[in-house]
Amino acid sequence: MDIKIQQVETSKIESVDFSNLSFGQVFTDHMLVCSYTNGEWESPEIIPYGPMTFEPSARVFHYGQAVFEGMKAYKDDDGDIFLFRPDESIKRLNASSERLAMPALPEEIFHEGLKQLLHLDTEWIKKGFGNSLYLRPFVIATEPAISASPSNDYKFIIICSPAQSYYAGEVRVVVADKFSRAADGGVGYAKAAGNYASQFYPTSLAHKEGYQQIIWTDANTHEYMEEAGTMNIFFRIGDKLITAPTNDRILDGITRKSIIQLAKDNNIDIEVRNIKVSEIREAAEKGELKELFGSGTAAVVNPIKGFKHKDFTYELPELESTYASFFKEKLMNIQYNKSEDVHGWRVKV
Amino acid sequence: MDIKIQQVETSKIESVDFSNLSFGQVFTDHMLVCSYTNGEWESPEIIPYGPMTFEPSARVFHYGQAVFEGMKAYKDDDGDIFLFRPDESIKRLNASSERLAMPALPEEIFHEGLKQLLHLDTEWIKKGFGNSLYLRPFVIATEPAISASPSNDYKFIIICSPAQSYYAGEVRVVVADKFSRAADGGVGYAKAAGNYASQFYPTSLAHKEGYQQIIWTDANTHEYMEEAGTMNIFFRIGDKLITAPTNDRILDGITRKSIIQLAKDNNIDIEVRNIKVSEIREAAEKGELKELFGSGTAAVVNPIKGFKHKDFTYELPELESTYASFFKEKLMNIQYNKSEDVHGWRVKV
Ligand SMILES: Cc1ncc(COP(=O)(O)O)c(C=O)c1O
Ligand SMILES: Cc1ncc(COP(=O)(O)O)c(C=O)c1O
Repeated sequence: MDIKIQQVETSKIESVDFSNLSFGQVFTDHMLVCSYTNGEWESPEIIPYGPMTFEPSARVFHYGQAVFEGMKAYKDDDGDIFLFRPDESIKRLNASSERLAMPALPEEIFHEGLKQLLHLDTEWIKKGFGNSLYLRPFVIATEPAISASPSNDYKFIIICSPAQSYYAGEVRVVVADKFSRAADGGVGYAKAAGNYASQFYPTSLAHKEGYQQIIWTDANTHEYMEEAGTMNIFFRIGDKLITAPTNDRILDGITRKSIIQLAKDNNIDIEVRNIKVSEIREAAEKGELKELFGSGTAAVVNPIKGFKHKDFTYELPELESTYASFFKEKLMNIQYNKSEDVHGWRVKV
Repeated sequence: MDIKIQQVETSKIESVDFSNLSFGQVFTDHMLVCSYTNGEWESPEIIPYGPMTFEPSARVFHYGQAVFEGMKAYKDDDGDIFLFRPDESIKRLNASSERLAMPALPEEIFHEGLKQLLHLDTEWIKKGFGNSLYLRPFVIATEPAISASPSNDYKFIIICSPAQSYYAGEVRVVVADKFSRAADGGVGYAKAAGNYASQFYPTSLAHKEGYQQIIWTDANTHEYMEEAGTMNIFFRIGDKLITAPTNDRILDGITRKSIIQLAKDNNIDIEVRNIKVSEIREAAEKGELKELFGSGTAAVVNPIKGFKHKDFTYELPELESTYASFFKEKLMNIQYNKSEDVHGWRVKV
């Protein structure tokens, strides 16, 4: 595939302090841009990262046709570059696009675009366990027209941001009992831009009470645990691990499905089923709720220290050995080419 | 208030065929832009309409922080310019912003910005019943950062598009029984960009069956009628008019609330209450369902010719005199300064 490359004259990498990165604030030298017009994807181009021009009437600004993915590139000690299950990301990107009446992107543009972009910006992928290059492929509607209908023009773009081992600080969560994230028959399963903006206000209310995130419950009854803002959620009761099944409200997380597989591989008792909030509260009261953690590309596995539901609050116990750190290590060992990869999840680019 | 104005050198108005306008495709010579940064709205500027630069990492592209309004400017035979209930639009814009964790816009910037912009582009507002200038005020998140949290920077923009009397062709609708538009506790009541993209795919499925729009039902049970994609919905059973109450799933339409008031003023029996889909089907079967129409700024009142719910289809009767045309005329007479305006809805700018 033919990708035209326009390189930067001077890299800005020297100006970046890689030991002190805020997530998603610094971008690499290059980005990939591919336009869709007249029913076709044109040839992608790699150009210097920088501002782009859009009409103020571009549909993305008005009707929210925008979907994205979140991935990471990892480097091993030999300097080889790896992605984790990129086939799942392009499938999910296209599933998100379909739900928003946006055109599917040919898988080849995705894979080949990532490859060439990563090789060009390879210096930005630092070696060392925990360092990575966060990749943000996204598609937005660019047609300058404000009638409420799908766009005829789109852009697929990949931007890249160097990331360090992600530590979000101590995370405590509120279990939603009023606001909700997604409706049955809605777009909750898609990585659609609008799903995120709608969480910011309820999350800001949680912040005021000293909680960092929200575990969303089903919008109908608020009786069932679903997922967090950018993470799927796992509960450990005794030695059993439980996570909610995916449905049209819940994002089918790649980290989640990998953890489910790893649990099976390692004879950890895992149940994928509906989880009542009341069940978790009872397990907490009986001292049987041992762990609560989120899973997602950014943090891999994020232990949750405590939760609040209505007037009930609970602090998770401090354990010597946790499922959270077990899975985090297993996953990172695969991602950084430090262990065997029996499922073929690691892809060298 | 100080608004810096940079005028176009030559207007492009001569190139526009005002007798043949597609909705929302042509924009006037100027637009208003006002930036929010460091916790404050800066002075607005009026500049030539045209492409703007944005970082590809601008949060609006990733997390959908984007809200908008839809209004019209009307000209009477004397050449005076009027808006319809602009105070309601700025209130609703700020309510939408609050739900998406975006800053409120000072009302003065909205009102004074509109005024100066409309006087500058006054030639674009054509006289004649039905002609108007469609106004699109909107706010988008511009901060170049892709962590999933609210933006620190925003732009408020007003673009304007000349419009003719809106005739959407014959409209038939599908009553939703699987997909949904909004969740309880969600953002359905906000004019949030993401609410629109999520409707395009289900609407495209309706198109394939020969229907133009969808009447959304409640996501929990699909038993209650809510609203359409860009219109609130009214049902006439016998001589009684019914519309659903607003709630956190339904947009509080300005046309809707004006029709409710006009119905009261004109002794038309109006009920604002939950409406079961089964009630409407039964009324249709008994021949008591006389009218079905949508209300919204673009079309004012849009009669609906027929509907489908599951395997039930129904064609509305052709009536000599309809509530739809009664309200449309009443509203337009107020908007175009042709009748008295007892409620003070018409505002001269
Ligand atoms: C809503 C939501 N849930 C869960 C996840 C986790 O998905 P993944 O493991 O594929 O990163 C994400 C993505 O980061 C997300 O945005
Ligand atoms: C979802 C939705 N419902 C209803 C309406 C009608 O509202 P208004 O009468 O204020 O234009 C609109 C706006 O056009 C809308 O977007």
